[in-house]
Amino acid sequence: MLPKPQLNPASEVPLYHQLYRHFTELIQSGSLARGDRLPATRELAGLLGLNRTTVSAAYELLESEGLISGQVGRGSFVTGVENAREGGLNWEAILGWSGTQAVPALATSNQNIISFAMSRPSEHLFPIAEFRASCQEVMSGPDIAGILQLGSPGGYEPLRQYLLEGARREGVARPGDDLIITSGCQQALDIVRRVLVRTADKVALEDPVYPGLKNLFREAGADLIGISVRADGLDVEYLERVLAKDRPKILVLTSSFQNPTGSTLNLEARESILRQARKAGTVIIENDIYGQLRYQGDALPTIKQLDDAGGTILLRSFSKISFPGLRVGWAVAPRAVIARMLEAKHLSDLHSDQFSQAVLLRFAASGRLEAHRSHVLEAGAEQLKAVLAACADYLPQGTEFTRPEGGMNVWVRLPEPLDALELLTRAQREGTEYLPGRYFAVRRPELGTLRLSFAGLGPEEIRKGVMILGQIFKSELDRLRRSWSREPTPAMV
Amino acid sequence: MLPKPQLNPASEVPLYHQLYRHFTELIQSGSLARGDRLPATRELAGLLGLNRTTVSAAYELLESEGLISGQVGRGSFVTGVENAREGGLNWEAILGWSGTQAVPALATSNQNIISFAMSRPSEHLFPIAEFRASCQEVMSGPDIAGILQLGSPGGYEPLRQYLLEGARREGVARPGDDLIITSGCQQALDIVRRVLVRTADKVALEDPVYPGLKNLFREAGADLIGISVRADGLDVEYLERVLAKDRPKILVLTSSFQNPTGSTLNLEARESILRQARKAGTVIIENDIYGQLRYQGDALPTIKQLDDAGGTILLRSFSKISFPGLRVGWAVAPRAVIARMLEAKHLSDLHSDQFSQAVLLRFAASGRLEAHRSHVLEAGAEQLKAVLAACADYLPQGTEFTRPEGGMNVWVRLPEPLDALELLTRAQREGTEYLPGRYFAVRRPELGTLRLSFAGLGPEEIRKGVMILGQIFKSELDRLRRSWSREPTPAMV
Repeated sequence: MLPKPQLNPASEVPLYHQLYRHFTELIQSGSLARGDRLPATRELAGLLGLNRTTVSAAYELLESEGLISGQVGRGSFVTGVENAREGGLNWEAILGWSGTQAVPALATSNQNIISFAMSRPSEHLFPIAEFRASCQEVMSGPDIAGILQLGSPGGYEPLRQYLLEGARREGVARPGDDLIITSGCQQALDIVRRVLVRTADKVALEDPVYPGLKNLFREAGADLIGISVRADGLDVEYLERVLAKDRPKILVLTSSFQNPTGSTLNLEARESILRQARKAGTVIIENDIYGQLRYQGDALPTIKQLDDAGGTILLRSFSKISFPGLRVGWAVAPRAVIARMLEAKHLSDLHSDQFSQAVLLRFAASGRLEAHRSHVLEAGAEQLKAVLAACADYLPQGTEFTRPEGGMNVWVRLPEPLDALELLTRAQREGTEYLPGRYFAVRRPELGTLRLSFAGLGPEEIRKGVMILGQIFKSELDRLRRSWSREPTPAMV
Repeated sequence: MLPKPQLNPASEVPLYHQLYRHFTELIQSGSLARGDRLPATRELAGLLGLNRTTVSAAYELLESEGLISGQVGRGSFVTGVENAREGGLNWEAILGWSGTQAVPALATSNQNIISFAMSRPSEHLFPIAEFRASCQEVMSGPDIAGILQLGSPGGYEPLRQYLLEGARREGVARPGDDLIITSGCQQALDIVRRVLVRTADKVALEDPVYPGLKNLFREAGADLIGISVRADGLDVEYLERVLAKDRPKILVLTSSFQNPTGSTLNLEARESILRQARKAGTVIIENDIYGQLRYQGDALPTIKQLDDAGGTILLRSFSKISFPGLRVGWAVAPRAVIARMLEAKHLSDLHSDQFSQAVLLRFAASGRLEAHRSHVLEAGAEQLKAVLAACADYLPQGTEFTRPEGGMNVWVRLPEPLDALELLTRAQREGTEYLPGRYFAVRRPELGTLRLSFAGLGPEEIRKGVMILGQIFKSELDRLRRSWSREPTPAMV
């Protein structure tokens, strides 16, 4: 009989990592020997009162370090410490604890699952013929040798000029502004972070928020201030109090169709936040990755367009409106910021892939991008209608959800005491999945929340998927309520 | 008459930035008003005893911030502070001082200049037809929608598997190792740095070294320990003393054809360094970007291949052996390190461009890469012969230079008191250029050193370029020696 691990749910170190350490010690001390079988994940989860995904995550980590080996249908076996090579380094000590949350295993690549897990466009909509034509034009163009040669940190100059002129026409780039091309919006965020954020700098950001954003600032040692986004949008009043009181160095906002909530700031909020940020000396980073994907309602100016004082950095990308596999995004900012971003970009990866930049320039300048966007907007309107109707029709009474007018995401808050993470495995078994809300939390996670990313699915799939979810949530709610009512009433003493 | 700036050559802040600050203050205080003309760069340089490039760099920075405006043939004029928009942020305070050295303006893109400045392949050798064929195959392949869709941080899986299998066959990947694809070697370095290096960690690296490497670790606040590379190679004895005494966390080495010196570690040195690093618990990062470009002599195993204990991380790239404009490199390392690099890659840019990865996979798997490499090796042998012969024939007596057997760079040390930076402008005027050695220095820059990157040029250009340089260096040496001998001998007292 193995010793029961001492797990501390209140610790900073997640449970799966505590469990991983427990087994590592047993293997290193010889309590578990080569060939020993580990308990099945389900069994151990029951024994320790843990979620099965926690146990699986621990086992995956053990396997990735070569300490155990899983055999399909047979379970996991200790392969021992001989994989830790003689004289080897103690990598765990060298690497330290990364602090990154483990995300549950997703089944996205399984064709039979209706996955609401990824905020990305549908590949069924990809205009492959138009992509090929753009590729052909670049391949046979006179510039091809230069495109394949080492380029400049600012980006492929013809694309950079094209984007800059567009940004100027739109009023997004002001006199004194410049533009840098990055490998998608994620790199734009990373580079802005690199240039602006030092340890303990105050960074205000939406809560919940896209994990790739909060983890980036957390890795940099920033002091994160989460501003609640509820079903009716960002808590602007609270944000303005934070700006006045804490004067954060940076405020990161997704003004339109925020990920994960889908919420959008109205014009009045944009103007008011801009005024307060200016007073506080706070730099606004406006992540406008979804802004081009409005399916209903009137377009709004970006905060960058409203900003006469040059305190906003705007981030955009081709990823959500064309091909995410080609990594091309950009930032528009005052020249002094772009100059510094060029240095950071140079250190990050010299420059972004030039062939993809050249192909996307052809794709955009030929009008193909705009034609594709109309198709995407049409499809998006259908998808949005389907997901909102299905949420209203199928989710249990008491569920709240956001009503975005564009983008890729709807945010759902289930009635208490449902836990979206606990129900994920069951959803996957029944043919659908989503991302539990806790992965997006900056401060306290709300266990009942989840994100439905609908842009990758057709209206029928969306309806079917939400229907399955509704059934799972309702039946679990019934079960929990029944079990409560069955609990014996304690004797009054 | 304007006040003379108080410049401090011993300061950490470079002279050009001190000069920039001086003018900023004059403009902000109103001492210089809108429309005032600044002294010509040549004139001011003479007045202050500065290099003209220093003055130009200061003016460029002033112009980039909208404080002055240059008019061709007329000079630079103050445009004033009204460009600093009302209510705007104080970007200089927010951004702080970047610490990055300004590199002199290069004329590389000028077709008429013989440029030894860039360590990159010749685009005349690019196999464009083979690139197009590889592109066609990917474009019309069955995978294309998946390639254009969001991918995984580890890289395009078929390419990742292809590279991993190759690395295993070669003995570069050991059992327990894994591979991650990055956007070129620069990003591999950046991600390794992100995962391994914290403020004040000791990092040993070659001195001189590629600036993109030292700046990366410097930005991270590492404590850099420079290990001298002289004409006869890395000072292995000193390195081993550093390993034993300082036990640095990381040792970064380019074992073959180091940039900028072209020097290569022999087998004995590799084995001995590996032993000492293991004893010291030091992680070796082996930057093997030029290893495939040996034009003479016998191939050597990489340190990674010699390392039984799993303490080495190997970095490679397609950039130097095919198309640098496609940003694809990779790292091979123990699984625990790769797992952490995946997280950092995800935060950096989600994943590298998938179309380029797929095209390079076709280019490699079809045998086209290997065929191209034979051409490059043939051309490289000619280039190397030409540059070494030209250095021997044309450079002044007393010049030392390295004799690499591959790669792209020769390192030259001119006789004292020649200063390679001072002579650069003259070289550019006479139709050639190079990078002064001081940009590669970790500790004390040697003013007489310079890097000749020969891979972008044909043998005739190489001979002509080195001949021009030889004439400039010789005539300057004569001039300096004449001026010394003319100096009055002080009276003995």
